[in-house]
Amino acid sequence: MINIGVIGYGYWGPNLARSVAETDGCRLAGIADFSAAALARAGKRYPGATLHQDVRSLIDDTSVDAVLIATPVATHYEIAAAALRAGKHVIVEKPIAASSDDARRLIEDAARRNLTLMVDHTFVYTSAVQKIGEIIRAGDLGDVYYYDSTRVNLGLFQHDVNVIWDLAVHDLSILDYLLQEKPIAVSASGAGHIRGRQENMAHLSLFYPSGTVAYLNVNWLAPVKVRQTLIGGSKKMIVWNDLEPSEKVKVYDRGVTLGDAPEAVAARISYRSGDMWAPQLSVKEALLTEMEHFVDCVTHGREPITSGQSGLSVVETLEAAMLSLRQRGQPIDICPVRMAS
Amino acid sequence: MINIGVIGYGYWGPNLARSVAETDGCRLAGIADFSAAALARAGKRYPGATLHQDVRSLIDDTSVDAVLIATPVATHYEIAAAALRAGKHVIVEKPIAASSDDARRLIEDAARRNLTLMVDHTFVYTSAVQKIGEIIRAGDLGDVYYYDSTRVNLGLFQHDVNVIWDLAVHDLSILDYLLQEKPIAVSASGAGHIRGRQENMAHLSLFYPSGTVAYLNVNWLAPVKVRQTLIGGSKKMIVWNDLEPSEKVKVYDRGVTLGDAPEAVAARISYRSGDMWAPQLSVKEALLTEMEHFVDCVTHGREPITSGQSGLSVVETLEAAMLSLRQRGQPIDICPVRMAS
Amino acid sequence: MINIGVIGYGYWGPNLARSVAETDGCRLAGIADFSAAALARAGKRYPGATLHQDVRSLIDDTSVDAVLIATPVATHYEIAAAALRAGKHVIVEKPIAASSDDARRLIEDAARRNLTLMVDHTFVYTSAVQKIGEIIRAGDLGDVYYYDSTRVNLGLFQHDVNVIWDLAVHDLSILDYLLQEKPIAVSASGAGHIRGRQENMAHLSLFYPSGTVAYLNVNWLAPVKVRQTLIGGSKKMIVWNDLEPSEKVKVYDRGVTLGDAPEAVAARISYRSGDMWAPQLSVKEALLTEMEHFVDCVTHGREPITSGQSGLSVVETLEAAMLSLRQRGQPIDICPVRMAS
Amino acid sequence: MINIGVIGYGYWGPNLARSVAETDGCRLAGIADFSAAALARAGKRYPGATLHQDVRSLIDDTSVDAVLIATPVATHYEIAAAALRAGKHVIVEKPIAASSDDARRLIEDAARRNLTLMVDHTFVYTSAVQKIGEIIRAGDLGDVYYYDSTRVNLGLFQHDVNVIWDLAVHDLSILDYLLQEKPIAVSASGAGHIRGRQENMAHLSLFYPSGTVAYLNVNWLAPVKVRQTLIGGSKKMIVWNDLEPSEKVKVYDRGVTLGDAPEAVAARISYRSGDMWAPQLSVKEALLTEMEHFVDCVTHGREPITSGQSGLSVVETLEAAMLSLRQRGQPIDICPVRMAS
Repeated sequence: MINIGVIGYGYWGPNLARSVAETDGCRLAGIADFSAAALARAGKRYPGATLHQDVRSLIDDTSVDAVLIATPVATHYEIAAAALRAGKHVIVEKPIAASSDDARRLIEDAARRNLTLMVDHTFVYTSAVQKIGEIIRAGDLGDVYYYDSTRVNLGLFQHDVNVIWDLAVHDLSILDYLLQEKPIAVSASGAGHIRGRQENMAHLSLFYPSGTVAYLNVNWLAPVKVRQTLIGGSKKMIVWNDLEPSEKVKVYDRGVTLGDAPEAVAARISYRSGDMWAPQLSVKEALLTEMEHFVDCVTHGREPITSGQSGLSVVETLEAAMLSLRQRGQPIDICPVRMAS
Repeated sequence: MINIGVIGYGYWGPNLARSVAETDGCRLAGIADFSAAALARAGKRYPGATLHQDVRSLIDDTSVDAVLIATPVATHYEIAAAALRAGKHVIVEKPIAASSDDARRLIEDAARRNLTLMVDHTFVYTSAVQKIGEIIRAGDLGDVYYYDSTRVNLGLFQHDVNVIWDLAVHDLSILDYLLQEKPIAVSASGAGHIRGRQENMAHLSLFYPSGTVAYLNVNWLAPVKVRQTLIGGSKKMIVWNDLEPSEKVKVYDRGVTLGDAPEAVAARISYRSGDMWAPQLSVKEALLTEMEHFVDCVTHGREPITSGQSGLSVVETLEAAMLSLRQRGQPIDICPVRMAS
Repeated sequence: MINIGVIGYGYWGPNLARSVAETDGCRLAGIADFSAAALARAGKRYPGATLHQDVRSLIDDTSVDAVLIATPVATHYEIAAAALRAGKHVIVEKPIAASSDDARRLIEDAARRNLTLMVDHTFVYTSAVQKIGEIIRAGDLGDVYYYDSTRVNLGLFQHDVNVIWDLAVHDLSILDYLLQEKPIAVSASGAGHIRGRQENMAHLSLFYPSGTVAYLNVNWLAPVKVRQTLIGGSKKMIVWNDLEPSEKVKVYDRGVTLGDAPEAVAARISYRSGDMWAPQLSVKEALLTEMEHFVDCVTHGREPITSGQSGLSVVETLEAAMLSLRQRGQPIDICPVRMAS
Repeated sequence: MINIGVIGYGYWGPNLARSVAETDGCRLAGIADFSAAALARAGKRYPGATLHQDVRSLIDDTSVDAVLIATPVATHYEIAAAALRAGKHVIVEKPIAASSDDARRLIEDAARRNLTLMVDHTFVYTSAVQKIGEIIRAGDLGDVYYYDSTRVNLGLFQHDVNVIWDLAVHDLSILDYLLQEKPIAVSASGAGHIRGRQENMAHLSLFYPSGTVAYLNVNWLAPVKVRQTLIGGSKKMIVWNDLEPSEKVKVYDRGVTLGDAPEAVAARISYRSGDMWAPQLSVKEALLTEMEHFVDCVTHGREPITSGQSGLSVVETLEAAMLSLRQRGQPIDICPVRMAS
């Protein structure tokens, strides 16, 4: 039985707390938040959990084996580092830290102490993304040509980060899981329409070593909500519409066939347009899948799917995207600093 | 009565010919195509029109007042220049020419001879775009924050141009009409997935002097057809879905309201979410509206809405986008060469 | 402060309990269920509520002012009658009772004791139905020609009632609210495809004194979920799609205009096709609106919108529909038994 | 080469004429219409066809082998009978005749003279209906539980027939093709909202010997266009949305599984919810498929899929539905008059 403490009981923390409470093999041992009102809500809901107004006291609680950190991004590093020092396993809300340097330090800290460090890239645990991953790994798409995502809606404007750190981070974590390679360059442009606030819309182009390209369209100031991703392959193509109540993932047997004859280039292209297939998806909640995975990783010392390394990779791309955005799309190389091993 | 000749009776020419035949004030006088089969089809359909296998002979026909040019892009300049020299008014298929230099020469030729030079930016004449223009000019959107368009489908791959010259050109002509300003810089990235062919997908970011930004997503290798544009303003926002059988244009009374108090930035942002309104659109075909406008411009010596200048502006942006695309999104300034006047 | 007890903590009871807990002016005083497991869940969630494994003991609790009954239909009458005899105000889950005779007795019991009797026709309290009601009462639709509803999905099969008593009851309660008149006849047909079970699909045609007609299509065995209602009027028409995340209600300025000239019947019909308008709907949860209304009715002695009378009217129509269904659509007159007053 | 004459060049006739012109093995020999304007349009389009202002003169033309009749319903019988007497093969627009008696006479006339009599039930030749037929005949759906169709839109109001004869006729012909059995009873209700006109909306319930039921919802006065059919089977279910540009037919691996244990009825029902599959459909136009079939039937003396018998079956059901509609849903038995053979 793993005793888990939740740090931060604001917008996302209650979801994490619930997922701990509903997962076998772990127990919701404590909840920390500096807000008395938040703690009161938490206590009413989970009378069995110890409440801490001071994060430190939860981290110092020796009965706690692991912590979930759902606090503002700027505080991720400090709290996670303290928890690791106290010998706790850690799940950090996305993004793992406010800088890649901080992310690297957390990875090293966890490795040195043989602790599990996981980042809460929730989308990776959805049945939609897992099914897409299966399809790609089975080779059904052939070569992955592109990933093209539209993730727009009206608000919520974040105070501390811009729309890239808030929304594009989802796609970056999904790409890290699906493609199993890291982008080598990024071009980003964006705009902020509200005086005194960071960018509320942005477009990113990501370039991968294999030739795959990814395009991300994120926007907090759109009149309608769209969550649609096209994934094109040499054999088949996918449309993933996350707002569909069912049939979120559709696989199209469509594409282009190139003939062999070198002379008549124009005539060599023909279109395939075959059946469409929408696989049945599990209705299991992503957070529960994720929490079971965490329990399994802690128990058996396994590397999480959304490890500190994947968290680092996402932050490295975010940093490069910010540089590019400041220069209207100037492409920026992503050169990960190698870690001493 | 304006006698009009159609040059090129391949994919688009028959539509132009039909629109001439159905418009008052003009007459389909002749059709030219080097293909005997195309001419045979044309003759069967329009027994009253003179058929020319040689473009030259149609241009030399003194009974012809104006020509419509629907030939491959590479031939636009030569044919249009010859027609202007022969004293004909001209409509050229989009884009107006393969280079901005050629476009400038056509504009000068037409101006010198007091001839009407129009480019067939058909979308500008759709009831959807005209209604959006009305709404913007009436100030209903407030400041235009952004124009974000997705224009993707499976094929047709063009032989002579890439997807930017084929699909993005539509949005560039629409933007020229709606915004009444020219972009000052562009960042573009793209990819070609078919060996030996040009780019089949691309993303463009356009920057305007007023602060408006435009994003274009064009793709010939998508599993589904999408024609959706979001237009965000400080007061209202528009969703234009051109594939909807009705309600193509929806106006949302949604946005963000910024308070005055300087101290509490976070608290100052509030959301508005009001009614949605879908104006009734005329069902008149865009090509007929366009042809009537051409007749009117020729008859009264008026400047067309889609003048040579707008054709030039589009080509200048296309050229800059190509430069940027070759450099993975490197932003390129658009500095129009001023014409001697 | 009204002390409220909830009887039945199975599928729907927890929603009612929550709505009591979240509404000002009332208090969740007690919960009754014969299942120990259900009671345990309830107690964990609402430590302040008294738990009763025997319904009788909750009804006998003199500190309880009102009860919400969410038990199987067959038990509604007995429990509600006992509660009224004990001087409690009552909300009964839909349908109010298993027979119109029972419904009439409850109405008389409540009237005699000056107690509030309300039936939980939840849909009447949704912002969509309330907005449609406003639009109709304002005369914007003109004469209401028809109400045509499709309410189909896969499962849940009910054990004790057929699909009419489970799904059509929603539309009947909505119609009672919107039309403010009672149907005079019904024709129904249906089919049961699962051996040994009641009908899982049915179609009802309802005839109203004013000439309005209503059609209901209900089905537990459909591959997809549909919740769409068309409402046609002489001036405007409505499409209500309850599965839309936003724009659930769309008002179309469309219809037919009939000229005056008597001679040329064919020529007299012309179509109007104008704007569409989707009013902003409140996001307030229907159950909270309903519970506030109940508190208001109890406090001020007002007649609920979804009174016992509306519950009776719905059951009378259900009974007539069952008779018709057994005879393959044979129309059945609905002749309400007049109550002694 | 079969010489074909088209009688009636109004709304539908031009489509038939075009399909003749584009089909191998037949020739558009003549066109008859009493309107000089219609004939002028026809002549311009088809200079090779003989024009007849008098139907009689086309029927008497001995060079004509077959006629297509696209005139008002009331005239179908007289013209078809005359054509058969003159030894012509015949395609009649749907419905085959204004009464079942007339339909029977045409069938007898054609049989006596060994002529092909076909009714233009166009939908039967669409790739969607043909694919659904394949799926049903392959047994993939299992037992067909129901067919539930919504076919509504705004206008066109017909002058001579009501909405059942105009729209429900499509579903009746599709059902005749898909189910290969005839309904034994029908219950219909409807309403006419325009003074002096026939019913503009109706609902039909059809009962088949096998236990299959069919429900048809037809309406000329709906704010939006809907063409959606649900087909439920014991193994799988279909959603056919004819307005979808692609994926018109979706097959859902969903349903209910009934266990064997007799004692626990409630527990025995479980839901299956598996993959969805949208078969690729041919893009060939239905009218061309139909015309090729006609040429094949005439050439080889085969019975058409949409034979006079299927035309008769549809009209018998329409007649019974009209009787039921006049009595508010009173079920009417359909007892086909046996023909002397």
